[in-house]
Order: sequence, then structure tokens, then C-alpha cells
Amino acid sequence: MTRRVALLSGGVGGARLARGFEHLEDVESTVVVNVGDDDTFYGWSVSPDVDTVLYTLAGQEGPHGWGRAGDTSVLMDHLAGLGVDTRFRIGDADAALNLYRTMRLRDGDPLHAVTADLATMMGVRSTVIPATDDRLRTEVRTGPGHWMSFQEYFVLRGHRDEVAEVRFAGEATARPAPGVLEAIAGADAVVIAPSNPPLSVWPILAVREIATVVRDARRVMAVSPLFGGRALKGPADRVLISLGLPPGNAGVAAAYPGLIQDLFIDSADEADVPSLTGSGLSVHAGSTRIAEVEQATGLARRMMGLLGAAS
Amino acid sequence: MTRRVALLSGGVGGARLARGFEHLEDVESTVVVNVGDDDTFYGWSVSPDVDTVLYTLAGQEGPHGWGRAGDTSVLMDHLAGLGVDTRFRIGDADAALNLYRTMRLRDGDPLHAVTADLATMMGVRSTVIPATDDRLRTEVRTGPGHWMSFQEYFVLRGHRDEVAEVRFAGEATARPAPGVLEAIAGADAVVIAPSNPPLSVWPILAVREIATVVRDARRVMAVSPLFGGRALKGPADRVLISLGLPPGNAGVAAAYPGLIQDLFIDSADEADVPSLTGSGLSVHAGSTRIAEVEQATGLARRMMGLLGAAS
Repeated sequence: MTRRVALLSGGVGGARLARGFEHLEDVESTVVVNVGDDDTFYGWSVSPDVDTVLYTLAGQEGPHGWGRAGDTSVLMDHLAGLGVDTRFRIGDADAALNLYRTMRLRDGDPLHAVTADLATMMGVRSTVIPATDDRLRTEVRTGPGHWMSFQEYFVLRGHRDEVAEVRFAGEATARPAPGVLEAIAGADAVVIAPSNPPLSVWPILAVREIATVVRDARRVMAVSPLFGGRALKGPADRVLISLGLPPGNAGVAAAYPGLIQDLFIDSADEADVPSLTGSGLSVHAGSTRIAEVEQATGLARRMMGLLGAAS
Repeated sequence: MTRRVALLSGGVGGARLARGFEHLEDVESTVVVNVGDDDTFYGWSVSPDVDTVLYTLAGQEGPHGWGRAGDTSVLMDHLAGLGVDTRFRIGDADAALNLYRTMRLRDGDPLHAVTADLATMMGVRSTVIPATDDRLRTEVRTGPGHWMSFQEYFVLRGHRDEVAEVRFAGEATARPAPGVLEAIAGADAVVIAPSNPPLSVWPILAVREIATVVRDARRVMAVSPLFGGRALKGPADRVLISLGLPPGNAGVAAAYPGLIQDLFIDSADEADVPSLTGSGLSVHAGSTRIAEVEQATGLARRMMGLLGAAS
């Protein structure tokens, strides 16, 4: 029987798990992607997490967790020659995609429609939907009164600052993109990807109606982004702590209070299991390394197996 | 002694003559460039005539009268792959320049400042100023009530339509860019380039204060864009006629009524001289071919010589 999965995803980790689900023949997956990282560079509307998911599902992901495989940098080199700040480097094929999106948005098309068309052009089988078509921006506070955009924090400053607070500009009015609520409500399992909980998943849940329907979902499983207590890449472990959550997987669990029934953690963190099982949460230890398609497919299958056993 | 020249210029013809003046050591030239062709493509503010002048003076002009020599088309190819209409093709280096201008304009910098900075970066010796920083757009009527933008007429439809009327949107409020009036008023000679009179020069003169100061200038010389009664390229000859002006150089003279004292025409049109000399206009026949730098310098020198004789 076909299982329906709704995956809440940030960038790389979510994209890789999405690829695992896409490889399961009996799964129909919808990827609801974070747009809190969206920004404007060179006049283009960039949607880094949406693009990472699309590129990964199309087998075209760049080697560094962003951009496109084998891309050239002709345009950036010319811009740099004119003295333009090109620290946010975008390859030529990636630039064309961003420019395409920008032109469509300027013509009045909503982000979900542009994303769907890109997915079709790229031969992506999963349904990929941005969490919202509305403006929603993750901002972090790194010092007293010092707020900055996500991209300034993450790319320009290399996520070296301690994050004291996080907020989502636009959350009060952001509505879920068409299809998001239906995908979550109709899912046999809602899966929270191994993305940074506060910085990549909270901005999805910041859309009030999404949080509500996730809370009412049949089953919600999360995959921890930690390995031996640390994020593979990025600041997830540090951000959990600096925001006042417990360290390690207890922090991941605490980031989704009352929201998840299952937490998948890596074998390296098996020692966390006893401390996590108190609150009715089922904790599943095993490999959560998913860089390779086979690994991602294996984890996705384990998650679905759990579901099968429960039904 | 140093002569000051203010050259009113459209694209290729004006750019080439500007290059001639730039090669005369005893001439300080200011090129006042048409912006009626400016438009928006791919979200970029394009200024085709300004760029043609800059590229030509920098020795980087493309082979077809637009764009940049040796440019690549990586971005356009990617855009075409996404189904974007790329009939208005812009090479990668040219795209970077247009993107640079767009970002500066969006930051609030005026066109003349961006143009001056580009000229400096490109090592251009002449002063290059857009006629106006304000929005001024050449539009042509090709049928009853059927108005179109200049670029639609010229590039997309290949200037095949008969132009029944021309207008300059924004002319009522457009102010000369800083330096334009001073350059014209202080010039020993104002030179109207061999550009299309109605489509490339009229939009400069459509800025009321520019027309006034040209009318009061010490001496105004025009170079005809015709060779044997025809434009080398482009629709100048046809447009003069379809707008109701006389054919040939009589039409060029009639396009600048009461404005010019000297008209330079090509040797091929020497037969036009008698019919042109009636109204106090001095007509000078000789080669007006200026594709090569030496030819352009020769014509510029002839024009300056005339000035020397008169002073």
C-alpha cells in the first residue's frame, strides 16, 4: 500500500532525506520547505533551501550544500571585476534559476507555482512546496539589540556568532502555501527532517496554521541532526544550547515540545536514549547518516517500517 | 588650443564619431547620450546607447553594434533552458554591467553617476553623460493607435514596421543630467552624430532645456547618417520619409530645423548639395565612413578644422 509522507525540510539534511523517500516506490512524499532563509542578492529572490531540495532531488546538488553541481562562475567573475560584493557567490546556472524565479515573482506568480514548475522541469517526482508564499524571514539576535538576517549570520559571518534569540519576521501574517495543510493532514507520517530545529524547522512551524495541523497529525517523527552530540556541519548543536535548550538530543526533543511521537537519533548517541524516553517519546537509535542515496533510502525505509508495524 | 566639443549621440554612429574625437589630442569631448532606448530586460535596467558609447570608447564594442567584444552567453543559454524568452540576448560581461547599473540605480544612485563610474573603470577619456537621469522612453506608432516601445520595434520586430509617429514618454518632466547643459553651452562646437535623427537624436532634444541650450550654442554641426540616400544599417532613411520629412539629406536637414549651421554629408550624396544650401546651411561633402578609428579621427579633424577657420 502507498504511504503518504509530509517532510518538513530545511536545506541539505532535509534534501537528503527527501531523496531517500523519493526512492521508496510505495511512498508519495510532499516536501514542505523552509523559506526563512530566503533573501535578495543581486536583485534576485533567492530561496536557498527550496533550491537545495530541488537540486538534490534532481541529482544536481552542488558539493558544498548549496548551488548546482559543475556550475560555472562567469557572471560572478565579471561582477567582481566591477567591484560588486560577490561574497554570496551564485554560479551561472544557479543565477539563471534565481533570475527565472525573480521574473516570475515580479510577474505576480506565487512562489509555490514557480517551485512546482521548476520541479517539473527538473524531473523531480516528489511534490515540493515552500512553507508559505508570503514573506517570512528568519532573523537572529547575536548581541544586545543586534539583529541580523539569516544570510548575514550564516553565509557572510559564517555562523560564528552565538545566537541569543531567533525570530521570524512576517510570521503573524504568513499563510501556508496551497497544498501544505492538505499534505500534512493527509499524511500517514509527518517527518521532521534532520535540519537545524530552531533555524530551519521553527520557521516552517512559525506559520501558525502549519503548526496546528502538525500538532493534529496522525504521527510525527523527527530525525535528529546530531551525531555524537554535534551537528555534522552548521551550528545546530550550538544554537540549541545558546537558546537555552538542553544540550544534545534532549535539546532536539525539547525543540518540538508535544509535537513528535518518534525521534530517530544516530547510533553514536545511543547513550541519550534513557534520558529521552521519559515523556512518552519513542526513541530509535541507528545510523542516521544519509549523505549517500542508499543510506537515505535505508533510513526512510526504517521510518516507514515503524509505521507499518503500528498500523 | 584645446577645443571643447559636445557630441549628441545615439548608438553605433555616435559612438564611432566619439571615438574619433577622443583620438584628437587638442579636443575635450563630452558625449551626451540618448536614453530613449533604455528599457528593462530580465529585471535589468538596460541603456543600450550609453553602453555602446562606453564599449566603443573602451575598444570593447561588440561586432553587431551592441554588446561587448568576445562576450560569452552562458547565462542566456541557461535562461533559454528554463524557457525564458531570450530574444533580447545579453552576453555575460554585458549582463554583469547591466546588473551593476541596476543595483546602483536601485540603491538610489542616478544614471549619470553610474555611467561616470563605469567610464572611469573602463578607462574612457571622454566625459560620457546620459541626456537625462529621468525616465524618458522613445515609443513609435506603427499603425492606427498602435504604439510600441523602442526595443520592441527595433530588436524584437527588427525595425520592419513603418513608423507613422514617434513620441518620448516622460519628456514633459525630464531634466538634463548634471553637466549636460554646461557641456553644450561651453562647447566650441556642438556636434550631432550620424545617428537616426528622429529615433536617436530627437529623444535627446526632447529634454526641453537641452533643446534650448543647443539652439543658443556657438556652432552646431550635424553629420548625416545617410550614404547614397540610405542608412548603412537601421531604418533612418525610411523613418524620415514615413514621418513626412523629405527623402535623403534634405530630410536630415529638416529634422533639425533652425538648429544646425553645418551639415556633413557623404561624398556619395554630393548631388544633394545644391538643394541643401538654400537656407543658410553650410554643407560639407566628403567621406563620412567612420567604422575605422582613423576614418573617425579624420572626420573629427575635418570638423574641427572648419571651426579653426571660422575663429
